[in-house]
Amino acid sequence: MSVQKPSLKSVQKLFKTKKKKKPSHKIGLPPASLVFTGDKKQEEVFINLITYDENDFYEEIIKLDQLEDHLKLQKKVTWIDVIGLHDVDILEQIGLAFGIHKLTLEDILSVDQRPKMEVFEDYVFATLKMIQCPTPESPIDEEQVSFLLHDSVLITFQEKKGDVFQFVRDRLLDPKRAIRQRGADYLLYALLDAVIDNYFIVMENIGERIENLESQAMLEPGNETLNSLYLQRREMMDLRRSVYPLREVIGSFDKYAEHKISPEVRPFIRDLYENTIQVIETMEVFRDMSSGVLDLYMNSLSNRMNNIMKVLTIISTIFIPLSFVAGVYGMNFENMPELHWQNGYFYVLGVMGIAVLGMLFFFRRKNWL
Amino acid sequence: MSVQKPSLKSVQKLFKTKKKKKPSHKIGLPPASLVFTGDKKQEEVFINLITYDENDFYEEIIKLDQLEDHLKLQKKVTWIDVIGLHDVDILEQIGLAFGIHKLTLEDILSVDQRPKMEVFEDYVFATLKMIQCPTPESPIDEEQVSFLLHDSVLITFQEKKGDVFQFVRDRLLDPKRAIRQRGADYLLYALLDAVIDNYFIVMENIGERIENLESQAMLEPGNETLNSLYLQRREMMDLRRSVYPLREVIGSFDKYAEHKISPEVRPFIRDLYENTIQVIETMEVFRDMSSGVLDLYMNSLSNRMNNIMKVLTIISTIFIPLSFVAGVYGMNFENMPELHWQNGYFYVLGVMGIAVLGMLFFFRRKNWL
Amino acid sequence: MSVQKPSLKSVQKLFKTKKKKKPSHKIGLPPASLVFTGDKKQEEVFINLITYDENDFYEEIIKLDQLEDHLKLQKKVTWIDVIGLHDVDILEQIGLAFGIHKLTLEDILSVDQRPKMEVFEDYVFATLKMIQCPTPESPIDEEQVSFLLHDSVLITFQEKKGDVFQFVRDRLLDPKRAIRQRGADYLLYALLDAVIDNYFIVMENIGERIENLESQAMLEPGNETLNSLYLQRREMMDLRRSVYPLREVIGSFDKYAEHKISPEVRPFIRDLYENTIQVIETMEVFRDMSSGVLDLYMNSLSNRMNNIMKVLTIISTIFIPLSFVAGVYGMNFENMPELHWQNGYFYVLGVMGIAVLGMLFFFRRKNWL
Amino acid sequence: MSVQKPSLKSVQKLFKTKKKKKPSHKIGLPPASLVFTGDKKQEEVFINLITYDENDFYEEIIKLDQLEDHLKLQKKVTWIDVIGLHDVDILEQIGLAFGIHKLTLEDILSVDQRPKMEVFEDYVFATLKMIQCPTPESPIDEEQVSFLLHDSVLITFQEKKGDVFQFVRDRLLDPKRAIRQRGADYLLYALLDAVIDNYFIVMENIGERIENLESQAMLEPGNETLNSLYLQRREMMDLRRSVYPLREVIGSFDKYAEHKISPEVRPFIRDLYENTIQVIETMEVFRDMSSGVLDLYMNSLSNRMNNIMKVLTIISTIFIPLSFVAGVYGMNFENMPELHWQNGYFYVLGVMGIAVLGMLFFFRRKNWL
Amino acid sequence: MSVQKPSLKSVQKLFKTKKKKKPSHKIGLPPASLVFTGDKKQEEVFINLITYDENDFYEEIIKLDQLEDHLKLQKKVTWIDVIGLHDVDILEQIGLAFGIHKLTLEDILSVDQRPKMEVFEDYVFATLKMIQCPTPESPIDEEQVSFLLHDSVLITFQEKKGDVFQFVRDRLLDPKRAIRQRGADYLLYALLDAVIDNYFIVMENIGERIENLESQAMLEPGNETLNSLYLQRREMMDLRRSVYPLREVIGSFDKYAEHKISPEVRPFIRDLYENTIQVIETMEVFRDMSSGVLDLYMNSLSNRMNNIMKVLTIISTIFIPLSFVAGVYGMNFENMPELHWQNGYFYVLGVMGIAVLGMLFFFRRKNWL
Repeated sequence: MSVQKPSLKSVQKLFKTKKKKKPSHKIGLPPASLVFTGDKKQEEVFINLITYDENDFYEEIIKLDQLEDHLKLQKKVTWIDVIGLHDVDILEQIGLAFGIHKLTLEDILSVDQRPKMEVFEDYVFATLKMIQCPTPESPIDEEQVSFLLHDSVLITFQEKKGDVFQFVRDRLLDPKRAIRQRGADYLLYALLDAVIDNYFIVMENIGERIENLESQAMLEPGNETLNSLYLQRREMMDLRRSVYPLREVIGSFDKYAEHKISPEVRPFIRDLYENTIQVIETMEVFRDMSSGVLDLYMNSLSNRMNNIMKVLTIISTIFIPLSFVAGVYGMNFENMPELHWQNGYFYVLGVMGIAVLGMLFFFRRKNWL
Repeated sequence: MSVQKPSLKSVQKLFKTKKKKKPSHKIGLPPASLVFTGDKKQEEVFINLITYDENDFYEEIIKLDQLEDHLKLQKKVTWIDVIGLHDVDILEQIGLAFGIHKLTLEDILSVDQRPKMEVFEDYVFATLKMIQCPTPESPIDEEQVSFLLHDSVLITFQEKKGDVFQFVRDRLLDPKRAIRQRGADYLLYALLDAVIDNYFIVMENIGERIENLESQAMLEPGNETLNSLYLQRREMMDLRRSVYPLREVIGSFDKYAEHKISPEVRPFIRDLYENTIQVIETMEVFRDMSSGVLDLYMNSLSNRMNNIMKVLTIISTIFIPLSFVAGVYGMNFENMPELHWQNGYFYVLGVMGIAVLGMLFFFRRKNWL
Repeated sequence: MSVQKPSLKSVQKLFKTKKKKKPSHKIGLPPASLVFTGDKKQEEVFINLITYDENDFYEEIIKLDQLEDHLKLQKKVTWIDVIGLHDVDILEQIGLAFGIHKLTLEDILSVDQRPKMEVFEDYVFATLKMIQCPTPESPIDEEQVSFLLHDSVLITFQEKKGDVFQFVRDRLLDPKRAIRQRGADYLLYALLDAVIDNYFIVMENIGERIENLESQAMLEPGNETLNSLYLQRREMMDLRRSVYPLREVIGSFDKYAEHKISPEVRPFIRDLYENTIQVIETMEVFRDMSSGVLDLYMNSLSNRMNNIMKVLTIISTIFIPLSFVAGVYGMNFENMPELHWQNGYFYVLGVMGIAVLGMLFFFRRKNWL
Repeated sequence: MSVQKPSLKSVQKLFKTKKKKKPSHKIGLPPASLVFTGDKKQEEVFINLITYDENDFYEEIIKLDQLEDHLKLQKKVTWIDVIGLHDVDILEQIGLAFGIHKLTLEDILSVDQRPKMEVFEDYVFATLKMIQCPTPESPIDEEQVSFLLHDSVLITFQEKKGDVFQFVRDRLLDPKRAIRQRGADYLLYALLDAVIDNYFIVMENIGERIENLESQAMLEPGNETLNSLYLQRREMMDLRRSVYPLREVIGSFDKYAEHKISPEVRPFIRDLYENTIQVIETMEVFRDMSSGVLDLYMNSLSNRMNNIMKVLTIISTIFIPLSFVAGVYGMNFENMPELHWQNGYFYVLGVMGIAVLGMLFFFRRKNWL
Repeated sequence: MSVQKPSLKSVQKLFKTKKKKKPSHKIGLPPASLVFTGDKKQEEVFINLITYDENDFYEEIIKLDQLEDHLKLQKKVTWIDVIGLHDVDILEQIGLAFGIHKLTLEDILSVDQRPKMEVFEDYVFATLKMIQCPTPESPIDEEQVSFLLHDSVLITFQEKKGDVFQFVRDRLLDPKRAIRQRGADYLLYALLDAVIDNYFIVMENIGERIENLESQAMLEPGNETLNSLYLQRREMMDLRRSVYPLREVIGSFDKYAEHKISPEVRPFIRDLYENTIQVIETMEVFRDMSSGVLDLYMNSLSNRMNNIMKVLTIISTIFIPLSFVAGVYGMNFENMPELHWQNGYFYVLGVMGIAVLGMLFFFRRKNWL
């Protein structure tokens, strides 16, 4: 008998993809109280400081108390990359140093925060999800990253080590690159662009997965197909919550942050906005495609049922009447003339043979064979 | 036979969750006539008065006639918390004391009121649903709560004792808290925030319930699953009616109540607005998820049907032809040569055995075994 | 056999609820030609005149030619309630007396008119559907009612006797009521409020019907359930056409009729608007609920099919193999050793018994029993 | 066996309703090149000229070269009704005479043009579909009609003879009619009103058809029902493309053609706009209704399946066990004590009878009988 | 047995239609770095230069370094048609010569670019998909084409040789054509018009395909039908991504490019806009139609199942009871009076015959025959 219930494995896989959420809200605490709501994903919080202008480039992993000294270096652009969020003290001190509103700090710490962008008097703040999924088989790794643009200083906050910014760092090393000539707003753009680029990779991987499910649903549909499809759709639901607000977030840079973004960088932001829309439209197409796969699967199930029924019906239709005939001549009546015919048995066999041929002809005409 | 009809219990549970509604509108009464439309949920109406400034804090459960004396205390902020709505007289006197419009009083009393927010000349009025659902198993407890901000006085109206404001009261006790420094508008915000925070808890509980239904639909789908799912969806429909208007209610504070809300409190209200949107988006995801569970369930039903049919078909296909053969040799023709063969019986048994093996091979090739 | 086709009765009921429509448009007539498009629902057209101020109240059923005399009475407010529309002459004379545009008269007469509100120089005109459905069992009675506010005169046009305004009339009798102090705009509001209140009653009755269908679909689903559900959905479709435009109609009073509505009455109109939205939202919830009931019903059908198939499969799976065994020993071969064993018969019965037990165990493991 | 495939007839009917479309666009031609894209529906193009004022009325079918003379007649209003579009020359000359833009001429000739309305400096242009469907059985006849209002001259372009304007022509004959007092804008309104009135008739006929399908789906569902329903839905899809843009077309008259439409005619246009919305809403209701009919049909199919399965199960469940018993006593064991009992045969028959009664009781309890 | 799984062929066809995509984004590269993201579709990049005014016309395939000389020719309009995108150098030099923004160049090279239109200070830029599908059987050929209008110079960028512009080139040869009198903006319009015209052809071909699927689903539904339908829907999903943004692209010309488009050309652009909307609406209708075909197909599957079950039930219901009767008289009881009757056998045969007739009558009454 084929497996009726989904294998334990596939269900375990399901529950593995659902990361156990801690209550995402700090119930009972005063509003804007600083509490990290995520999982502590590494031991120590550390700060990666990069500061550069056309001529110089300087990168160091520093302690919080060294930060002030480095800020005096007076380079054109300073990028403070805070990696790890669970040490609230560090965040509070940075908040103090740059005059960050308490609600902004709270947003940085709430890792279930909806992507958003806000313009304050002194700074522009944006928070969004950085997703990574290098191959179609790998799970989607989601991490919240926040950006805070404060004049020539860009501060980023990541949950853990490992990000999509390595290409940007590499480019910063090369003094001939345009990025070295430009300000912190261009750096912000470059980082956002790196994030959105990874959305494209994830989209391509999802697309490949759906195409696999598609050919699976056509060629060898099974319970596994449906469960995979279901998991795929749930993953996309989760992803949508990260992707859809992006449109607004990136769009707001163009609309509300005019005084913070230099005119030369603005076309780049607009370009980013177009890319975001493209990501969103791709998601919509995937949504339609996955419904299509469901239809395919459901149809294949119906088809299978039809085929099972056909086998049953053919067998029954052929043999039940024949058995009846055999039954008739198995009756024990004293007076059954046929039984005494010399070739009665062979006549009956012949009639049965002809009946079978008739049935086969009927089934072929009905296209069941 | 497995249970075909939903157990009486599950249906009773259904009808228990549907609270018997009294006609929600006072037909035949003049408009704005003050009649309490809900169920009387406690014996007495009482007023919990809290009044405080940076230095002092005073809390007492008072009678209505004491209210005037207390209002003379001249603290910075006064919070009048009216618990119980069925005593219309008390409400009318408060209405008189604070110059509240008759329609506002009517809205406070209509506990089926759609959440809304209105700005009057003297005060800002908002009414919404306070929901509580401490664990995934507990039913959702919904209660209407109205807020009336009148300069430094905040009046709240609840249907019954027991609310989500205890954490706010606790914070008020501590003179070092920011809340003690700020005005009644911040108190309003803190209370609204407490209400919205509870929506998040309810969302998490609903999420857990849907995930349970999900694994149930995959592993052991039954009629119970469907009924639970149906009840879950109905509960969410009811909840949506409380949740969706919130967006407008909270959004209106930012747009229309500028002169009533101090500039320092406004960012907090905006933050609240973001949270409200997040609640609404979560509801949408749950809606999609519950349709997904329905698909899963329906598929599991089809699958089950397929399996039942497979068993029937395999059994029939194997034994019906064999029975026919047995029937043939049970015929009573006088001249049936095979019957007289020494090993005829064993030959027939052999042929039958080979046929069975052939069938099994056919079924395995069709992936039915 | 259970009833396969819907009983004649249920279908007749269906066609009874569909009131035979006369062509709703007067094809071939000049635009704005006055022709009554509805059914003549009573013999005579009569006019109920109410005129009142703070001190006096006067009510009489009058003839058209008496109207002019009564209008000279110079009370504060006059309410001319025209009951019956089929006498076009009366309408034309009223139109002449109050300077009513021909298109307005045409709208009053077209009883299939979509609810709408229009502001003319001299008057405000609104037409909508008055629905009544006192109990969940009673059919929904729909009637077009038009309002025409012309300074201190309010004219209403109803299709037939019997309306939802009795409560308003009762209140008018009491000189202490607020309504006696206020103008014709407040009277208009009071009447509209009475109409909307009846929408709430109808909604509650529909809600009860859907809940009945719901428990029917869970406990004893049958063809009747589906037909009732279908009729319910059709009724709601019809109702939607009356309900949805209300939002616009009532909303327009606030937006476009500022000079016709006194400032004191405006908050009441806004309140009415909120109620209208609540009615519309309730309709939406009912729509979702009725799809939910359809899902429930469809599932119960599938479940039933599953159970029928289970019975068939269990019976077949147990007895077909046993019959085969019996068939084998019913063969007439000369040399069948088992037949001559002393206890062969009992051995076979024993083997059969064991097989049955094995089957039962298998079915229980598959959860079919 | 009932008919499994749709009869050839119903399919032929399907393909008949799909009028073979010529490529609707003139690929490879310069834009605005004048080519008639429809089918030539009559031999000759002719012009029906009507010109009138309060006192005079003059109607003649004229040649193109007579047109100029007639235009000098200096009546108040001139209506040039061009019937037949395939003679591009005539159109070009009219275009020249009235200064019509080449794109407008192109729109007049493209009979697959989406309904639209455009305001030019000298004239207002509108094109829409005139539909006719006198009875529920008759196919919907669609024809493009274009209106061009040029001061006191109204030019209309029809594809073929036979239109919905006869009633308007009749009214024009009567000098006492309002239409004789008014200008060409009122004539335009009267014609548009005639077109929209016919939409109402078509809607009523479609409504009747859907109601027929509805009762068919309930009482005698068959493959025919589904095909008819499908054809009905396709027809409505086509119709929607003509109906939906109407809202914009008629709405634009009010918004953009203020200087072309006299103030007295404007309320009539607004009334027309309301009617258009009513047509659109009716289409939406029909759409919902036809999905409802599909649900009904699908359910009746499932029901039918259920009933077939019930019959099979009842027969099998009763007779398969009985046959087994008969098979047992048909075995040829030497030692079968029951066979030698005096009344063994009758005992067995009795047991069988009791078993049948038990089964019947079981089926009744399960509500299958 | 009929084919249960889709033939290998149909699946291969599926995968052939999905062109293997290269990662559409240049991960890790600086933003606006010029990299061609498509497939190199021909060996060489070449430039087709057309320059003309009322009197002269000149066309040549030139090298990049000849371009400057030609630009000095000072004709009224110059059309530089760059065919092939993989040589980034050529693009960079053109960019330099005309002052094209780096982001624009990047958009030209990204062949998965979403259709868009942008106005820069010096030029207007638009990119969209040019689709070709000459017959219903041919696959849809999609190619990105970009337009850059820079005063009197129009530059177009195509991926490969072969386009839809041949008709425009032919018209340019004829000095009497309007196009020779007008500027580069009219040329842009003419080219866009050619592109949109081809969308109409593709729509007509898709329409024909859907109608084929439709009659296939009605007359001979099979697994092939569903797979074709599925492929059709996927193709339409892809197409939608090219078609939907067109509305915005063409609409933007009217709204944002006023200073670049001369007033005489603007009505043409508006006409183009109307056509675009018509294409989009057609897509929507096709979407609905393809769901309708799916419904038809699913129903035909259910119908087929019903018919299979009917055959099985008829055969079983007739023969199973008869076999039982034969089984009864095959029992070996000693005392079975009927067996000794002279005509017992014939009586039984008679009873059986009557039972068969009764069954047939029953089936006919149930409409199964």
